[in-house]
Amino acid sequence: MLRTHTCGELRLEHAGTAVTLCGWIQKSRDLGGMTFIDLRDRYGITQLALNMDSNAELCSFARKLGREYVLKVAGVVKERENKNANIPTGAIEIEVNSIEVLNEAITPPFTIEENTDGGDELRMKYRYLDLRRASVRSNLQLRHQVARHTRAYLDQKDFIEVETPVLIKSTPEGARDFVVPSRMNPGEFYALPQSPQTFKQLLMVSGFDRYYQIVKCFRDEDLRADRQPEFTQIDCEMSFVEQEDVLNMFEGMVQHLFKEVKGIDIGTLPRMTYADAMKYYGSDKPDTRFDMRFTELNTLVKGKNFKVFDDAELVIGICAKGCADYTRKQVDELTDFVKKPQVGATGLVYARYNSDGSLKSSVDKFYDEAALKEWAAAMQAEPGDLMLILAGPLHKTRKAMNELRLEMGTRLGLRDKNTFSCLWVLDFPLLEFIEEEGRFFAMHHPFTSPKPEDLPLIDDMLEAMKAGKLDESATVPRANAYDMVINGVEVGGGSVRIFNKDLQKKMFTLLGFSDEEAQKQFGFLLNAFEYGAPPHAGVAFGFDRLCSLFGGADSIRDFIAFPKNNSGRDVMIDAPSSIADKQLDELSIALKN
Amino acid sequence: MLRTHTCGELRLEHAGTAVTLCGWIQKSRDLGGMTFIDLRDRYGITQLALNMDSNAELCSFARKLGREYVLKVAGVVKERENKNANIPTGAIEIEVNSIEVLNEAITPPFTIEENTDGGDELRMKYRYLDLRRASVRSNLQLRHQVARHTRAYLDQKDFIEVETPVLIKSTPEGARDFVVPSRMNPGEFYALPQSPQTFKQLLMVSGFDRYYQIVKCFRDEDLRADRQPEFTQIDCEMSFVEQEDVLNMFEGMVQHLFKEVKGIDIGTLPRMTYADAMKYYGSDKPDTRFDMRFTELNTLVKGKNFKVFDDAELVIGICAKGCADYTRKQVDELTDFVKKPQVGATGLVYARYNSDGSLKSSVDKFYDEAALKEWAAAMQAEPGDLMLILAGPLHKTRKAMNELRLEMGTRLGLRDKNTFSCLWVLDFPLLEFIEEEGRFFAMHHPFTSPKPEDLPLIDDMLEAMKAGKLDESATVPRANAYDMVINGVEVGGGSVRIFNKDLQKKMFTLLGFSDEEAQKQFGFLLNAFEYGAPPHAGVAFGFDRLCSLFGGADSIRDFIAFPKNNSGRDVMIDAPSSIADKQLDELSIALKN
Repeated sequence: MLRTHTCGELRLEHAGTAVTLCGWIQKSRDLGGMTFIDLRDRYGITQLALNMDSNAELCSFARKLGREYVLKVAGVVKERENKNANIPTGAIEIEVNSIEVLNEAITPPFTIEENTDGGDELRMKYRYLDLRRASVRSNLQLRHQVARHTRAYLDQKDFIEVETPVLIKSTPEGARDFVVPSRMNPGEFYALPQSPQTFKQLLMVSGFDRYYQIVKCFRDEDLRADRQPEFTQIDCEMSFVEQEDVLNMFEGMVQHLFKEVKGIDIGTLPRMTYADAMKYYGSDKPDTRFDMRFTELNTLVKGKNFKVFDDAELVIGICAKGCADYTRKQVDELTDFVKKPQVGATGLVYARYNSDGSLKSSVDKFYDEAALKEWAAAMQAEPGDLMLILAGPLHKTRKAMNELRLEMGTRLGLRDKNTFSCLWVLDFPLLEFIEEEGRFFAMHHPFTSPKPEDLPLIDDMLEAMKAGKLDESATVPRANAYDMVINGVEVGGGSVRIFNKDLQKKMFTLLGFSDEEAQKQFGFLLNAFEYGAPPHAGVAFGFDRLCSLFGGADSIRDFIAFPKNNSGRDVMIDAPSSIADKQLDELSIALKN
Repeated sequence: MLRTHTCGELRLEHAGTAVTLCGWIQKSRDLGGMTFIDLRDRYGITQLALNMDSNAELCSFARKLGREYVLKVAGVVKERENKNANIPTGAIEIEVNSIEVLNEAITPPFTIEENTDGGDELRMKYRYLDLRRASVRSNLQLRHQVARHTRAYLDQKDFIEVETPVLIKSTPEGARDFVVPSRMNPGEFYALPQSPQTFKQLLMVSGFDRYYQIVKCFRDEDLRADRQPEFTQIDCEMSFVEQEDVLNMFEGMVQHLFKEVKGIDIGTLPRMTYADAMKYYGSDKPDTRFDMRFTELNTLVKGKNFKVFDDAELVIGICAKGCADYTRKQVDELTDFVKKPQVGATGLVYARYNSDGSLKSSVDKFYDEAALKEWAAAMQAEPGDLMLILAGPLHKTRKAMNELRLEMGTRLGLRDKNTFSCLWVLDFPLLEFIEEEGRFFAMHHPFTSPKPEDLPLIDDMLEAMKAGKLDESATVPRANAYDMVINGVEVGGGSVRIFNKDLQKKMFTLLGFSDEEAQKQFGFLLNAFEYGAPPHAGVAFGFDRLCSLFGGADSIRDFIAFPKNNSGRDVMIDAPSSIADKQLDELSIALKN
């Protein structure tokens, strides 16, 4: 080793020890008689002290060294005069005897500091310098810890990590695949997996019983702010279980992770049906860090000649605690907010429950104080609170109120990134009708099992389909599907799988697959189900997202060592890029204009 | 859970316990009054007992159930009359009260037994059934253990696992890349990584200090018997270290793995230079489970009018212990063996050191018994041994003798798969001259550091290059590169890296890159080296191969859950396959005839 210690481990008890450290110059301060250098490595920062009086040559040499130079420094640990309580090594410094410059550095394009002056594009281009910043590095260290404790938990529960292939087969169902031309099989392509779904089910058919994998997956989607073409999943599957077993197993995993990584006891996860989540939060991933549930007001507000409410399919309200004294301007802001196209409401009704007990609303013409008192009672509003009400079509109004609720949560400081609220959302619809395609799609995926009590609905739908009468008015069976939601983010989801070939065939029919198509796409799975498939169920967690949540961050990008930008480019290595004609020829493909 | 216990955990102490088991029917035996079913899951096999007398209905029902049916069985644990000492559950059986058929099974295309009647192609097509066989499953369980203990060791040594990207940039140096057309960047392609080499070096520039990753890598090569287009590496890199530190760290890792996974103490790893490996074993990956080193005989055998030896650049011999009584037929077999084109010798000279102390050779005309005694002394042959001698050009003869040595090792039973002999091979040549290309290539990769004492040779080669006089006669510098060899298999290799931009540029020049090409291909790495790169070094282990070695197997395929065949096909899912025209259009590519 070129060093005896790291830059993070020396303490007062080491005083007098001769040491050799290696690292980068974080900064240096020339105080005339003394020069101090902060030497940085992954483990911390240690102060080097050079004295002009005692060693003028070395001190003069040190003064010429620039930021980010790589040094090997020998010296003796000494107690500092001015201790720095902010860093673990702050009680000591190194009285330097010799400096070897291991490598020089030109001036970085941005400062390697917590608050860097580098813009996003520049930091991505020089990601290897960005990764020197303590916060980015600690994000990746956190990621390692989350992976480590995930494995420890699953190993202890008898799960086996099995690597499934990356070069697989393209399936048109679902998102777009990345494909890989096969040189040895001209005209044919591999696809990169969007998830190891079918493989993990096959492993259950094989009797692996409990499988997991922390695995890269790929989706060629148009990238939104926080999506990456390659992402990582914690992918799991179990046999001979029911939904309850899976919920308990992975509730245990998340409890374990919070305990080990964050030192937080998150307790038992509440469970909420999809129907309730939509009714009370207008979202299948409610942010339950704060309450502010929706109150349905239809029975209370209709028939009072206020046309907006009378015509509305749904009138819902939320109670913003302590906001009765919002100014006109603040209320106008909220009105503008709900009218934004991405929120989609046509207007906002509000009612103040003033601290003096009086009530005042934007619809006083239609509702007297007694009526408003009824609203307040329904919404559990108290003096000092502000009631916010939206009305309109059911889905649209719930969606808009979800946005308004989150906005109010943010304004009221109820969405602290270091507070964690987890829950299970259960009983998702099995299918959803996609207007543009004019047919039903699997809400989760085609292998998800309906709830046993809803099985007759499958046959009803198939009959309607046969009769050419299947449309969105059909009663959709609920699925044995579940999502884990933390702080309003879906971090994981899964389902009990269909393990019966006949039911699986029915599902494919409902999803518009012909027998031939189903056989072509999923024949190997359907065949496998002929040879004794066990009951099984599983779950997958978005690992990048889980890490960013643990790190209290909004973006997953800071938790990925080398992320791609919104055009799917790695600007550091400049990929993708053109390839040689010879490569194209060998792959039997050509570029098209 | 559908079960109370697994099929592997019940013992005599459970007698009297009511249990529910789930699993597959391994086999059933109908003994008239009794029917026995072996129920199998991942954890083991438990015998179910059904009695025609006490429960005729259930027993009759059970007799109709076929192999591989999936059952849920309730019953009571009972001591067996005829215990089976071969399985851990052999002392008990389950007196069955009820059977639920969870799933039926049609007859598998091959028997799910250790010695299956399924051929390779059939087993691959139905891999999900092949994986039910205990040996294949235990291979994958072993793989999981090797991964687990690898991570435990590296975690404990402060290594951080960092995921590097899978969608990267194609580089023409090295093996052929798999490429991925980018839909969002028409005409451009990602490449799948052959290794995370440049990324791990960038992580060192970033100050990550100690990195590892168990990671999929990809190579579009023509597949030989035991190569896969996707394979897994244990990829590692360290900063502020010298070669000695890396050797110690990863020697420690392999010792740890043998200890934890196999319960074997492999002791300290011997070290051998590349030069010695070639001289004594004719291979840079000597199988050191047995000795039988080469003895160079030039000084001993030349000048005795035997033209074959006199004309030969090199005459080498090995001593086959106890083989003096090989029959003429056996010796002829060896002669045929060395003459095979892939071995490449022109003939074999042998000398028997008979048990009675007499000596007899195939070249008695030229060498008398006294001369043969000298050979014997040189080769440490004793009465009863057979000396085998090859002669010819240096490289060719060493290569042929390596093959003959391995053949003799096999014949003599010296290559037991459950004996392990590990070593480091050091001081590889930095470059090798490739005849067909007429230039030097990096033996390891272009980032490998020369040994410091051989640095002047780099400048000599560059001068010769400038003068147009660089050819294979050049003295090639040795590299700070090392391979770990176990039982004649290279399981890992690595090097100290170049961390100086100027030296890296020189290397690229020697490898025939223009400045522009080097900048285009590796600009991001060369640039990174400008900003303070630390001294660093690393290693990568072939994980599939390591697992197969631990499992005592020759083929890696049995240690991969879903391997591809020699045409790169996954015959189970039928990939690669054609894709829709719409997909091609979206990717701006077309098929070429």
